[in-house]
Amino acid sequence: MTYCLAIKVNQGLVFCSDSRTNAGPDRVSTYSKLHRFKVGGDRRIFMLSAGNLATTQAVVAEVARDIENSAPNGLADARYVSEIADYVGQVSVRTQQKYVNSGPMGGFNAEATFILGGQIKGHEPELYMIYPEGNHITTSKSYPFLQIGETKYGKPILDRIIRSDTDYETAMRCALVSMDSTMRSNATVAPPIELLYCPADSLDNPSKYFCFEENDDYLVGLRKGWDENIVRAFNDLPGLAL
Amino acid sequence: MTYCLAIKVNQGLVFCSDSRTNAGPDRVSTYSKLHRFKVGGDRRIFMLSAGNLATTQAVVAEVARDIENSAPNGLADARYVSEIADYVGQVSVRTQQKYVNSGPMGGFNAEATFILGGQIKGHEPELYMIYPEGNHITTSKSYPFLQIGETKYGKPILDRIIRSDTDYETAMRCALVSMDSTMRSNATVAPPIELLYCPADSLDNPSKYFCFEENDDYLVGLRKGWDENIVRAFNDLPGLAL
Repeated sequence: MTYCLAIKVNQGLVFCSDSRTNAGPDRVSTYSKLHRFKVGGDRRIFMLSAGNLATTQAVVAEVARDIENSAPNGLADARYVSEIADYVGQVSVRTQQKYVNSGPMGGFNAEATFILGGQIKGHEPELYMIYPEGNHITTSKSYPFLQIGETKYGKPILDRIIRSDTDYETAMRCALVSMDSTMRSNATVAPPIELLYCPADSLDNPSKYFCFEENDDYLVGLRKGWDENIVRAFNDLPGLAL
Repeated sequence: MTYCLAIKVNQGLVFCSDSRTNAGPDRVSTYSKLHRFKVGGDRRIFMLSAGNLATTQAVVAEVARDIENSAPNGLADARYVSEIADYVGQVSVRTQQKYVNSGPMGGFNAEATFILGGQIKGHEPELYMIYPEGNHITTSKSYPFLQIGETKYGKPILDRIIRSDTDYETAMRCALVSMDSTMRSNATVAPPIELLYCPADSLDNPSKYFCFEENDDYLVGLRKGWDENIVRAFNDLPGLAL
């Protein structure tokens, strides 16, 4: 399983992902699900992936090859991030069709879902969730985050905290808390946790990137603090008159 | 959609359910999903239901008719709550088969899931979750709750608070908070919220029953308090050094 999320606040974009993949409980591996692409200085593009690992690897590899080969209509020459989302959707559908169209694979699930985000000079930062069918949705002012994979356990805290004007440190911390709730309730979502902040309108500045291992001091402190604070938040509630 | 849960603590059993049913967004109704049965003074049995409404209504009706007709092997004469769970599972499977076996209904989903709980004199209180396939699981000391329907949003708080030695008021309050998180993230889970406490080893004492409408003062206060306390719990977390 997988849990990835991305948040669009006024200050920029936040991406967060776990790193566990599993094909059955005895085939557990660690793979990064946060992908960065080497493109020109006028753009910055990131991608998160969930679903069939063979599909996501093939899609990421094709996207990277297209950049190397300067293929037209790819990441390097798109005018809008939404055009890149269209392109990734097409690559994804084509990749899935390779495996599921043939007869003996009936019922095989090669689906993959992506979150694509970034900024092209002269435009706002943008986030898109690309469905297995190749189409995509974006965020809105009142719903400024997107999730893929095991999304439900970590959604309540995002619903409560994240607004468009949330500052980027709060958004990053909230992404980690959302990830922690998910890891606690689903054993197939696990560290290392990757966290990236891409500031808006500053294509020259580097993004801030963190990779938290299971026993990372900050992550352990955050988990412990959240545990204690949640229990206190609950205990402080008005009692039920019985 | 539906969200129901039941908790087994040392002091007794807690049941909680929402009341919204929907067959498409324009066919929304309110039905109780907490069922009580009139049985002898040596037992107390409750049931929560999720899934296809026609199936759950048919199952509940057949169980009630069997009690009226003193049919053998029903709720009235079972020696163990697990026997009742077996019996409800059989009724459920038979009901589903009535509709899905016939040709034109191929693909129609008549599945239903139940939580059955109660106590028979001389035995411990027990809880069972009955799958659509008719089989069932029970709780354990370290996992003393069961959920059906839209279970994920409300699970993290149960994971953090509920233990076997949790007192019953805390368990009831935690059930309401779990329900509130679910209602906030899924619009098809909605009040009235029913909440029932059945004390252990006191078959003569009445159970405590509450039904909270949308604007119930306690429910509104709990929701507001939880909102504020969660935000404070989050804000009190250690900041990320950037």
